[in-house]
Amino acid sequence: MRDQTIGEFLEQLSARVPAPGGGASAALHAAQGAALVAMVARYTTGERYAGHAAAVERITAAADALRETALRLAAEDAAAFTAVTDAYRLPKDTDEEKAARSAAIAAALQGAARPPAEVVGIAEGVIALAGELLPIGNRNVLSDVAAATEAARAAAGTARVNIEINLGGIKDEAARAGFSATADAVGALMERADRVTDAVRQEIAK
Amino acid sequence: MRDQTIGEFLEQLSARVPAPGGGASAALHAAQGAALVAMVARYTTGERYAGHAAAVERITAAADALRETALRLAAEDAAAFTAVTDAYRLPKDTDEEKAARSAAIAAALQGAARPPAEVVGIAEGVIALAGELLPIGNRNVLSDVAAATEAARAAAGTARVNIEINLGGIKDEAARAGFSATADAVGALMERADRVTDAVRQEIAK
Repeated sequence: MRDQTIGEFLEQLSARVPAPGGGASAALHAAQGAALVAMVARYTTGERYAGHAAAVERITAAADALRETALRLAAEDAAAFTAVTDAYRLPKDTDEEKAARSAAIAAALQGAARPPAEVVGIAEGVIALAGELLPIGNRNVLSDVAAATEAARAAAGTARVNIEINLGGIKDEAARAGFSATADAVGALMERADRVTDAVRQEIAK
Repeated sequence: MRDQTIGEFLEQLSARVPAPGGGASAALHAAQGAALVAMVARYTTGERYAGHAAAVERITAAADALRETALRLAAEDAAAFTAVTDAYRLPKDTDEEKAARSAAIAAALQGAARPPAEVVGIAEGVIALAGELLPIGNRNVLSDVAAATEAARAAAGTARVNIEINLGGIKDEAARAGFSATADAVGALMERADRVTDAVRQEIAK
Protein backbone atom coordinates (compact mmCIF):
# COMPACT_ATOMS: atom_id res chain seq x y z
CA MET A 1 0.00 0.00 0.00
CA ARG A 2 2.82 2.39 0.89
CA ASP A 3 4.11 2.66 -2.70
CA GLN A 4 0.72 2.84 -4.36
CA THR A 5 -0.59 6.22 -5.38
CA ILE A 6 -3.67 7.36 -3.48
CA GLY A 7 -5.63 7.36 -6.74
CA GLU A 8 -4.66 3.74 -7.49
CA PHE A 9 -5.41 2.56 -3.96
CA LEU A 10 -8.87 4.15 -4.01
CA GLU A 11 -9.53 2.71 -7.47
CA GLN A 12 -8.71 -0.78 -6.17
CA LEU A 13 -10.73 -0.18 -3.00
CA SER A 14 -13.76 0.60 -5.18
CA ALA A 15 -13.21 -2.43 -7.46
CA ARG A 16 -14.77 -5.88 -7.31
CA VAL A 17 -11.61 -7.50 -5.93
CA PRO A 18 -11.23 -9.23 -2.52
CA ALA A 19 -8.51 -6.85 -1.26
CA PRO A 20 -7.99 -4.03 -0.42
CA GLY A 21 -11.23 -3.70 1.56
CA GLY A 22 -12.32 -2.43 4.94
CA GLY A 23 -9.23 -3.84 6.61
CA ALA A 24 -6.83 -1.78 4.52
CA SER A 25 -9.09 1.24 4.94
CA ALA A 26 -8.98 0.84 8.74
CA ALA A 27 -5.18 0.61 8.67
CA LEU A 28 -5.00 3.75 6.52
CA HIS A 29 -7.28 5.65 8.94
CA ALA A 30 -4.95 4.60 11.77
CA ALA A 31 -1.89 5.73 9.81
CA GLN A 32 -3.55 9.10 9.09
CA GLY A 33 -4.27 9.55 12.79
CA ALA A 34 -0.70 8.68 13.74
CA ALA A 35 0.68 11.09 11.11
CA LEU A 36 -1.54 13.93 12.37
CA VAL A 37 -0.41 13.37 15.97
CA ALA A 38 3.20 13.46 14.81
CA MET A 39 2.51 16.70 12.90
CA VAL A 40 1.05 18.42 15.96
CA ALA A 41 4.05 17.24 17.99
CA ARG A 42 6.46 18.62 15.36
CA TYR A 43 4.74 22.03 15.66
CA THR A 44 5.21 21.85 19.43
CA THR A 45 8.94 22.51 19.64
CA GLY A 46 11.27 25.41 20.39
CA GLU A 47 11.73 27.71 23.36
CA ARG A 48 8.03 28.20 24.02
CA TYR A 49 7.50 24.47 24.58
CA ALA A 50 10.88 23.76 26.19
CA GLY A 51 9.21 22.45 29.35
CA HIS A 52 7.52 19.72 27.33
CA ALA A 53 10.45 18.89 25.05
CA ALA A 54 11.00 15.38 26.40
CA ALA A 55 7.32 14.44 26.19
CA VAL A 56 6.99 15.92 22.70
CA GLU A 57 10.03 14.03 21.48
CA ARG A 58 8.65 10.78 22.88
CA ILE A 59 5.22 11.43 21.33
CA THR A 60 6.76 12.19 17.92
CA ALA A 61 8.78 8.96 17.92
CA ALA A 62 5.83 6.90 19.16
CA ALA A 63 3.48 8.37 16.53
CA ASP A 64 5.98 7.74 13.74
CA ALA A 65 6.32 4.12 14.88
CA LEU A 66 2.52 3.68 15.01
CA ARG A 67 2.25 4.98 11.44
CA GLU A 68 4.83 2.44 10.24
CA THR A 69 3.04 -0.38 12.03
CA ALA A 70 -0.31 0.67 10.57
CA LEU A 71 1.10 0.53 7.05
CA ARG A 72 2.54 -2.93 7.74
CA LEU A 73 -0.85 -4.10 9.08
CA ALA A 74 -2.55 -3.00 5.86
CA ALA A 75 -0.35 -5.44 3.94
CA GLU A 76 -0.84 -8.19 6.53
CA ASP A 77 -4.59 -7.72 6.40
CA ALA A 78 -4.62 -8.27 2.65
CA ALA A 79 -2.47 -11.41 2.99
CA ALA A 80 -4.67 -12.78 5.79
CA PHE A 81 -7.79 -12.14 3.72
CA THR A 82 -6.31 -14.01 0.76
CA ALA A 83 -5.56 -16.95 3.07
CA VAL A 84 -9.27 -17.11 3.98
CA THR A 85 -10.30 -17.11 0.32
CA ASP A 86 -7.73 -19.84 -0.40
CA ALA A 87 -8.99 -21.99 2.49
CA TYR A 88 -12.58 -21.83 1.21
CA ARG A 89 -11.32 -23.08 -2.17
CA LEU A 90 -9.81 -26.28 -0.71
CA PRO A 91 -11.40 -29.55 -1.96
CA LYS A 92 -14.33 -30.96 0.03
CA ASP A 93 -15.09 -34.24 -1.76
CA THR A 94 -14.13 -36.70 0.99
CA ASP A 95 -14.73 -36.56 4.75
CA GLU A 96 -10.99 -36.18 5.23
CA GLU A 97 -10.87 -33.24 2.81
CA LYS A 98 -13.90 -31.67 4.49
CA ALA A 99 -12.24 -31.87 7.91
CA ALA A 100 -8.96 -30.46 6.59
CA ARG A 101 -10.79 -27.64 4.79
CA SER A 102 -12.85 -26.82 7.88
CA ALA A 103 -9.72 -26.64 10.05
CA ALA A 104 -7.94 -24.52 7.44
CA ILE A 105 -10.87 -22.08 7.29
CA ALA A 106 -10.98 -21.74 11.09
CA ALA A 107 -7.23 -21.11 11.20
CA ALA A 108 -7.45 -18.59 8.35
CA LEU A 109 -10.33 -16.71 10.01
CA GLN A 110 -8.31 -16.56 13.22
CA GLY A 111 -5.40 -15.19 11.19
CA ALA A 112 -7.71 -12.65 9.57
CA ALA A 113 -8.86 -11.31 12.96
CA ARG A 114 -5.31 -10.51 14.07
CA PRO A 115 -4.53 -7.50 11.82
CA PRO A 116 -7.76 -5.63 12.73
CA ALA A 117 -7.17 -6.47 16.41
CA GLU A 118 -3.73 -4.88 16.09
CA VAL A 119 -5.27 -1.87 14.30
CA VAL A 120 -7.43 -1.35 17.41
CA GLY A 121 -4.19 -1.24 19.40
CA ILE A 122 -2.75 1.37 17.01
CA ALA A 123 -5.92 3.44 17.30
CA GLU A 124 -5.70 3.26 21.09
CA GLY A 125 -2.10 4.45 20.91
CA VAL A 126 -3.01 7.37 18.63
CA ILE A 127 -5.89 8.44 20.88
CA ALA A 128 -3.65 8.26 23.96
CA LEU A 129 -0.97 10.41 22.28
CA ALA A 130 -3.61 12.89 21.08
CA GLY A 131 -4.89 13.13 24.65
CA GLU A 132 -1.36 13.87 25.85
CA LEU A 133 -0.92 16.61 23.21
CA LEU A 134 -4.30 18.19 23.95
CA PRO A 135 -3.13 20.38 26.87
CA ILE A 136 0.42 21.04 25.65
CA GLY A 137 0.30 21.09 21.83
CA ASN A 138 0.73 24.21 19.66
CA ARG A 139 -2.69 25.95 19.63
CA ASN A 140 -2.31 26.81 15.91
CA VAL A 141 -2.72 23.13 15.02
CA LEU A 142 -5.21 22.23 17.74
CA SER A 143 -7.84 21.19 15.18
CA ASP A 144 -5.41 18.52 13.95
CA VAL A 145 -5.53 16.86 17.39
CA ALA A 146 -9.25 16.28 16.76
CA ALA A 147 -8.53 15.22 13.18
CA ALA A 148 -6.17 12.59 14.62
CA THR A 149 -8.72 11.23 17.09
CA GLU A 150 -11.48 11.14 14.47
CA ALA A 151 -9.17 9.14 12.17
CA ALA A 152 -8.23 6.75 15.00
CA ARG A 153 -11.90 6.36 15.94
CA ALA A 154 -12.75 5.32 12.37
CA ALA A 155 -9.83 2.90 12.40
CA ALA A 156 -11.10 1.26 15.59
CA GLY A 157 -14.73 1.24 14.45
CA THR A 158 -13.86 -0.34 11.10
CA ALA A 159 -11.49 -2.85 12.68
CA ARG A 160 -14.16 -3.87 15.20
CA VAL A 161 -16.55 -4.94 12.41
CA ASN A 162 -13.70 -6.80 10.71
CA ILE A 163 -12.93 -8.67 13.93
CA GLU A 164 -16.59 -9.46 14.54
CA ILE A 165 -17.14 -10.84 11.04
CA ASN A 166 -14.41 -13.43 11.65
CA LEU A 167 -15.34 -14.32 15.25
CA GLY A 168 -18.05 -16.87 14.46
CA GLY A 169 -15.71 -19.11 12.47
CA ILE A 170 -12.83 -19.21 14.95
CA LYS A 171 -12.75 -22.58 16.71
CA ASP A 172 -9.95 -21.88 19.19
CA GLU A 173 -11.92 -20.79 22.26
CA ALA A 174 -9.11 -18.78 23.86
CA ALA A 175 -8.31 -16.96 20.63
CA ARG A 176 -11.99 -16.18 20.07
CA ALA A 177 -12.37 -14.85 23.61
CA GLY A 178 -9.32 -12.64 23.14
CA PHE A 179 -10.54 -11.15 19.86
CA SER A 180 -14.02 -10.75 21.32
CA ALA A 181 -12.59 -8.77 24.25
CA THR A 182 -10.66 -6.52 21.84
CA ALA A 183 -13.84 -5.83 19.86
CA ASP A 184 -15.80 -5.17 23.05
CA ALA A 185 -13.23 -2.61 24.20
CA VAL A 186 -13.74 -0.46 21.09
CA GLY A 187 -16.88 1.22 22.45
CA ALA A 188 -14.97 2.73 25.39
CA LEU A 189 -12.11 3.68 23.05
CA MET A 190 -14.55 5.57 20.82
CA GLU A 191 -15.86 7.47 23.83
CA ARG A 192 -12.29 8.37 24.74
CA ALA A 193 -11.75 9.68 21.19
CA ASP A 194 -14.98 11.66 21.43
CA ARG A 195 -13.82 13.31 24.66
CA VAL A 196 -10.63 14.53 22.95
CA THR A 197 -12.58 15.87 19.97
CA ASP A 198 -15.13 17.56 22.26
CA ALA A 199 -12.35 19.22 24.25
CA VAL A 200 -10.80 20.57 21.04
CA ARG A 201 -14.17 21.90 19.87
CA GLN A 202 -14.81 23.55 23.21
CA GLU A 203 -11.48 25.31 23.12
CA ILE A 204 -12.08 26.46 19.52
CA ALA A 205 -15.51 27.84 20.51
CA LYS A 206 -14.01 30.00 23.29
CA MET B 1 -2.92 14.08 -3.64
CA ARG B 2 -4.18 11.57 -6.21
CA ASP B 3 -0.74 10.96 -7.74
CA GLN B 4 1.18 10.89 -4.47
CA THR B 5 2.07 7.53 -2.99
CA ILE B 6 0.35 6.75 0.29
CA GLY B 7 3.75 6.64 2.00
CA GLU B 8 4.65 10.13 0.71
CA PHE B 9 1.28 11.59 1.64
CA LEU B 10 1.51 10.24 5.19
CA GLU B 11 5.09 11.47 5.48
CA GLN B 12 3.96 14.99 4.52
CA LEU B 13 0.93 14.74 6.81
CA SER B 14 3.28 14.01 9.71
CA ALA B 15 5.71 16.82 8.79
CA ARG B 16 5.93 20.37 10.10
CA VAL B 17 4.38 21.88 6.94
CA PRO B 18 1.10 23.82 6.69
CA ALA B 19 -0.52 21.36 4.25
CA PRO B 20 -1.58 18.58 4.00
CA GLY B 21 -3.31 18.59 7.38
CA GLY B 22 -6.68 17.65 8.83
CA GLY B 23 -8.49 18.99 5.77
CA ALA B 24 -6.75 16.62 3.37
CA SER B 25 -7.18 13.79 5.87
CA ALA B 26 -10.95 14.45 6.00
CA ALA B 27 -11.16 14.42 2.21
CA LEU B 28 -9.25 11.12 2.10
CA HIS B 29 -11.59 9.56 4.67
CA ALA B 30 -14.52 10.66 2.50
CA ALA B 31 -12.90 9.18 -0.62
CA GLN B 32 -12.27 5.89 1.24
CA GLY B 33 -15.94 5.76 2.25
CA ALA B 34 -17.09 6.45 -1.29
CA ALA B 35 -14.75 3.78 -2.69
CA LEU B 36 -16.02 1.18 -0.18
CA VAL B 37 -19.65 1.92 -1.07
CA ALA B 38 -18.79 1.50 -4.76
CA MET B 39 -17.04 -1.79 -3.97
CA VAL B 40 -20.09 -3.20 -2.17
CA ALA B 41 -22.26 -2.09 -5.09
CA ARG B 42 -19.94 -3.81 -7.58
CA TYR B 43 -20.32 -7.06 -5.61
CA THR B 44 -24.10 -6.65 -5.80
CA THR B 45 -24.64 -7.53 -9.45
CA GLY B 46 -25.75 -10.51 -11.51
CA GLU B 47 -28.90 -12.61 -11.58
CA ARG B 48 -29.30 -12.81 -7.82
CA TYR B 49 -29.56 -9.04 -7.51
CA ALA B 50 -31.38 -8.43 -10.81
CA GLY B 51 -34.32 -6.80 -9.01
CA HIS B 52 -31.98 -4.10 -7.66
CA ALA B 53 -29.89 -3.63 -10.82
CA ALA B 54 -31.06 -0.07 -11.52
CA ALA B 55 -30.49 1.09 -7.93
CA VAL B 56 -27.09 -0.62 -7.75
CA GLU B 57 -25.99 0.98 -11.02
CA ARG B 58 -27.06 4.40 -9.77
CA ILE B 59 -25.30 3.87 -6.41
CA THR B 60 -22.08 2.77 -8.16
CA ALA B 61 -22.03 5.85 -10.40
CA ALA B 62 -22.88 8.18 -7.51
CA ALA B 63 -20.17 6.68 -5.26
CA ASP B 64 -17.55 6.94 -8.00
CA ALA B 65 -18.49 10.61 -8.51
CA LEU B 66 -18.29 11.30 -4.75
CA ARG B 67 -14.81 9.77 -4.67
CA GLU B 68 -13.65 12.05 -7.49
CA THR B 69 -15.10 15.11 -5.79
CA ALA B 70 -13.45 14.17 -2.48
CA LEU B 71 -10.04 13.98 -4.17
CA ARG B 72 -10.63 17.38 -5.79
CA LEU B 73 -11.61 18.85 -2.41
CA ALA B 74 -8.35 17.65 -0.88
CA ALA B 75 -6.45 19.79 -3.39
CA GLU B 76 -8.81 22.74 -2.90
CA ASP B 77 -8.40 22.50 0.86
CA ALA B 78 -4.63 22.80 0.56
CA ALA B 79 -4.95 25.80 -1.78
CA ALA B 80 -7.46 27.52 0.52
CA PHE B 81 -5.18 26.95 3.50
CA THR B 82 -2.24 28.49 1.66
CA ALA B 83 -4.42 31.55 0.88
CA VAL B 84 -5.01 32.02 4.64
CA THR B 85 -1.28 31.84 5.37
CA ASP B 86 -0.61 34.33 2.55
CA ALA B 87 -3.24 36.77 3.88
CA TYR B 88 -1.68 36.75 7.36
CA ARG B 89 1.65 37.68 5.74
CA LEU B 90 0.29 40.87 4.12
CA PRO B 91 1.88 44.13 5.33
CA LYS B 92 0.26 45.91 8.28
CA ASP B 93 2.32 49.10 8.62
CA THR B 94 -0.35 51.68 7.71
CA ASP B 95 -4.05 51.83 8.63
CA GLU B 96 -4.86 51.22 4.98
CA GLU B 97 -2.67 48.12 4.89
CA LYS B 98 -4.17 46.89 8.16
CA ALA B 99 -7.72 47.22 6.78
CA ALA B 100 -6.78 45.48 3.53
CA ARG B 101 -5.02 42.69 5.43
CA SER B 102 -7.96 42.22 7.77
CA ALA B 103 -10.40 41.98 4.84
CA ALA B 104 -8.10 39.55 3.03
CA ILE B 105 -7.86 37.32 6.12
CA ALA B 106 -11.64 37.24 6.54
CA ALA B 107 -12.10 36.37 2.85
CA ALA B 108 -9.41 33.69 3.05
CA LEU B 109 -10.95 32.12 6.17
CA GLN B 110 -14.32 32.07 4.42
CA GLY B 111 -12.63 30.35 1.48
CA ALA B 112 -10.99 27.87 3.84
CA ALA B 113 -14.34 26.85 5.34
CA ARG B 114 -15.80 25.90 1.96
CA PRO B 115 -13.82 22.68 1.22
CA PRO B 116 -14.59 21.09 4.63
CA ALA B 117 -18.24 22.15 4.26
CA GLU B 118 -18.30 20.32 0.93
CA VAL B 119 -16.60 17.31 2.54
CA VAL B 120 -19.55 17.16 4.97
CA GLY B 121 -21.79 16.97 1.88
CA ILE B 122 -19.70 14.09 0.47
CA ALA B 123 -19.88 12.27 3.80
CA GLU B 124 -23.65 12.70 3.85
CA GLY B 125 -23.84 11.27 0.33
CA VAL B 126 -21.70 8.26 1.29
CA ILE B 127 -23.78 7.55 4.39
CA ALA B 128 -27.01 7.80 2.38
CA LEU B 129 -25.69 5.36 -0.26
CA ALA B 130 -24.44 2.98 2.45
CA GLY B 131 -27.91 3.09 4.01
CA GLU B 132 -29.43 2.19 0.64
CA LEU B 133 -27.03 -0.75 0.20
CA LEU B 134 -27.59 -2.04 3.73
CA PRO B 135 -30.73 -4.09 2.93
CA ILE B 136 -29.84 -5.08 -0.65
CA GLY B 137 -26.04 -5.40 -0.81
CA ASN B 138 -24.12 -8.67 -1.16
CA ARG B 139 -23.94 -10.19 2.37
CA ASN B 140 -20.33 -11.32 1.77
CA VAL B 141 -19.16 -7.70 1.86
CA LEU B 142 -21.61 -6.44 4.47
CA SER B 143 -18.79 -5.41 6.81
CA ASP B 144 -17.59 -3.00 4.11
CA VAL B 145 -20.89 -1.10 4.37
CA ALA B 146 -19.94 -0.33 7.98
CA ALA B 147 -16.36 0.42 6.92
CA ALA B 148 -17.79 2.99 4.49
CA THR B 149 -19.97 4.69 7.12
CA GLU B 150 -17.13 4.78 9.67
CA ALA B 151 -14.90 6.44 7.05
CA ALA B 152 -17.62 8.96 6.16
CA ARG B 153 -18.24 9.66 9.84
CA ALA B 154 -14.56 10.50 10.35
CA ALA B 155 -14.66 12.72 7.26
CA ALA B 156 -17.62 14.66 8.66
CA GLY B 157 -16.20 14.85 12.19
CA THR B 158 -12.84 16.11 10.96
CA ALA B 159 -14.43 18.56 8.52
CA ARG B 160 -16.64 19.94 11.32
CA VAL B 161 -13.63 20.96 13.40
CA ASN B 162 -12.04 22.50 10.30
CA ILE B 163 -15.17 24.55 9.63
CA GLU B 164 -15.43 25.63 13.27
CA ILE B 165 -11.83 26.79 13.46
CA ASN B 166 -12.47 29.23 10.60
CA LEU B 167 -15.92 30.44 11.74
CA GLY B 168 -14.76 33.11 14.19
CA GLY B 169 -12.81 35.02 11.55
CA ILE B 170 -15.50 35.12 8.85
CA LYS B 171 -17.04 38.60 8.67
CA ASP B 172 -19.78 37.90 6.11
CA GLU B 173 -22.75 37.14 8.39
CA ALA B 174 -24.69 35.09 5.84
CA ALA B 175 -21.66 32.99 4.96
CA ARG B 176 -20.87 32.42 8.63
CA ALA B 177 -24.45 31.36 9.36
CA GLY B 178 -24.35 28.93 6.45
CA PHE B 179 -21.10 27.29 7.54
CA SER B 180 -22.30 27.22 11.13
CA ALA B 181 -25.46 25.37 10.06
CA THR B 182 -23.36 22.82 8.14
CA ALA B 183 -21.18 22.21 11.20
CA ASP B 184 -24.25 21.92 13.43
CA ALA B 185 -25.75 19.28 11.14
CA VAL B 186 -22.77 16.95 11.58
CA GLY B 187 -23.99 15.58 14.92
CA ALA B 188 -27.15 14.16 13.34
CA LEU B 189 -25.13 12.85 10.40
CA MET B 190 -22.84 10.98 12.79
CA GLU B 191 -25.86 9.39 14.47
CA ARG B 192 -27.10 8.33 11.05
CA ALA B 193 -23.71 6.73 10.33
CA ASP B 194 -23.81 4.98 13.72
CA ARG B 195 -27.23 3.50 12.91
CA VAL B 196 -25.87 1.95 9.70
CA THR B 197 -22.83 0.54 11.51
CA ASP B 198 -25.03 -0.80 14.33
CA ALA B 199 -27.34 -2.51 11.83
CA VAL B 200 -24.34 -4.19 10.15
CA ARG B 201 -23.00 -5.37 13.52
CA GLN B 202 -26.40 -6.73 14.54
CA GLU B 203 -26.68 -8.71 11.32
CA ILE B 204 -23.13 -10.06 11.74
CA ALA B 205 -23.94 -11.15 15.31
CA LYS B 206 -26.96 -13.20 14.17
